Amino acid sequence: MKKIVTIGGGTGNFVALRGLKKYEVELSAIVSMADDGGSTGILRDELGVLPPGDVRQCLVALSDSGRLMRSLMNYRFENGGLGGHSFGNLLLSALEKVTGSFEKAVEEAGKILSIKGKVIPVTTHQVRLKMVLNNGKLLEGEGTIFKSEELDQGYRSIYLEPYAKADDHAVEEIMGADMVVLGPGGLYTSLIPNLLVEGVSKAFRDSQATKVLVINLMNKKGQTTAFKTSDYLKEVVKFIGKDVFDFILVNHTIPPEELLHLYAQEAALVENDLDEARVVTADLLDHQKPEYKNDPLASHRSLIRHDSKKLAAELMKIVNNI
Amino acid sequence: MKKIVTIGGGTGNFVALRGLKKYEVELSAIVSMADDGGSTGILRDELGVLPPGDVRQCLVALSDSGRLMRSLMNYRFENGGLGGHSFGNLLLSALEKVTGSFEKAVEEAGKILSIKGKVIPVTTHQVRLKMVLNNGKLLEGEGTIFKSEELDQGYRSIYLEPYAKADDHAVEEIMGADMVVLGPGGLYTSLIPNLLVEGVSKAFRDSQATKVLVINLMNKKGQTTAFKTSDYLKEVVKFIGKDVFDFILVNHTIPPEELLHLYAQEAALVENDLDEARVVTADLLDHQKPEYKNDPLASHRSLIRHDSKKLAAELMKIVNNI
Repeated sequence: MKKIVTIGGGTGNFVALRGLKKYEVELSAIVSMADDGGSTGILRDELGVLPPGDVRQCLVALSDSGRLMRSLMNYRFENGGLGGHSFGNLLLSALEKVTGSFEKAVEEAGKILSIKGKVIPVTTHQVRLKMVLNNGKLLEGEGTIFKSEELDQGYRSIYLEPYAKADDHAVEEIMGADMVVLGPGGLYTSLIPNLLVEGVSKAFRDSQATKVLVINLMNKKGQTTAFKTSDYLKEVVKFIGKDVFDFILVNHTIPPEELLHLYAQEAALVENDLDEARVVTADLLDHQKPEYKNDPLASHRSLIRHDSKKLAAELMKIVNNI
Repeated sequence: MKKIVTIGGGTGNFVALRGLKKYEVELSAIVSMADDGGSTGILRDELGVLPPGDVRQCLVALSDSGRLMRSLMNYRFENGGLGGHSFGNLLLSALEKVTGSFEKAVEEAGKILSIKGKVIPVTTHQVRLKMVLNNGKLLEGEGTIFKSEELDQGYRSIYLEPYAKADDHAVEEIMGADMVVLGPGGLYTSLIPNLLVEGVSKAFRDSQATKVLVINLMNKKGQTTAFKTSDYLKEVVKFIGKDVFDFILVNHTIPPEELLHLYAQEAALVENDLDEARVVTADLLDHQKPEYKNDPLASHRSLIRHDSKKLAAELMKIVNNI
């Protein structure tokens, strides 16, 4: 059985995992620990726990339990002191308190949700993502960086504080994989934070796995404004080194004009300017109308998004050398 | 297989259920819906949910899952907006929001916790317990009544607002039982609130089940000050009618002097003044030193308490006609 490892965080990871889960493969999701926005940020500040948000999404993606459990995990309380907290975040934080370990908490939550595969925090250090922009401005925290519209001014440095070592299991998974998939996901807020953890980039380079970079569909204004596929690759290469990826997976379908128009103020399509043998282009677009009512995650996801089935199918072709 | 129904709420019910669970019986716990103190009260006010606290305790009592799940259910968040909430309460409230029904929520939580038996809210109406004392004072809410030290001045009335009908399942369970057990538990805050629900007392009277009243070990000062077993019976008879109970189960062991001394300010032992054939006296006392560290419920329970094994053993003798 092929062993596939995804690296990311947030909804990008969710889509890849949800699709890959349908195949007979061994799945591991390595998840960024830099999240500090919203419910996750409050839990970190008030309870001193590790960030549950991205882990929760991966658990839900890999869950074999019914729709109710998945809806429950993503349910957000609306009022009072609980307002804004998703139930799954509270589950992970309470489990961390009861077991005394975030890793153990993730494992136990995985049992409750009958997940297929593993979810592994990239590090168990309490880290904060920081970024110094070219204009000298310091952005503190993933939540702040996520909301910034100045990143496209360029940055001097991006780092985790304190400097964090990779979780042993994360390194083992990467080293033992048949395929490692980086992306899709927020470049500075979900992907690079994993590569900033000591040991991750090295494992990525050293692993005998087939390495795939999945390029995002859309650029976020003020963040990756006007980025082409080569810009994504260049940014990732800074942290991971040259000539590491065996395949670069790029969507080649144009979304409907009305959707692009809807997003025109905040995002634009990523253009492909790479012409290398390792670039695989395919239709990866989700053409379904999003079903807000039935999809517990719909409200957190873009209307222009990867189709989990198509993405997984392309990744399976790669890992099976088809 | 004998069918046993307990009626109560809170920790008294917990002890009985925990003990009965070890036997090959069909168990149903009918639970008061009047709780509005602490975490439960906040959830009712802020989210408009039905009170989860007593249900949570019954679910934990009947749970076949490991210690971790039980600790998780009783884990209380310590800081911030979540401070004071037990995780199990949040689970029930989130499930109520996701499923749209408290009954369904209890059922689903029962599955997650692999419970043996059923937990049934006595009513699914949003009720508040109220009490008018002889001095004319109106006490509003179970939480307020629980803390009052004036109840022993006597009361004019105790009632639920709005007037609530029993859940059909609760009535069915009572009618179909081989034995119905009322108590132990707070007389005015856990037991009587069940009897105030329309249909419960009638079902209790009409049922062919063997009916058992379990008398509390201790009197609470200002609430049941100097109550003897006959006073407990008299109070319950007011709501349930005369000659209903086949057995009245009373502890006859005196706790160690140092424990009684510890409680002298707030509670005193219940004396038995009933001399009827239906009164069964036995050693029901928990002689073990409470293990605060390992018992997730220890801090919520009195040091002088029923031993769940002894209580269950006596109840099993009754239901088996031994």
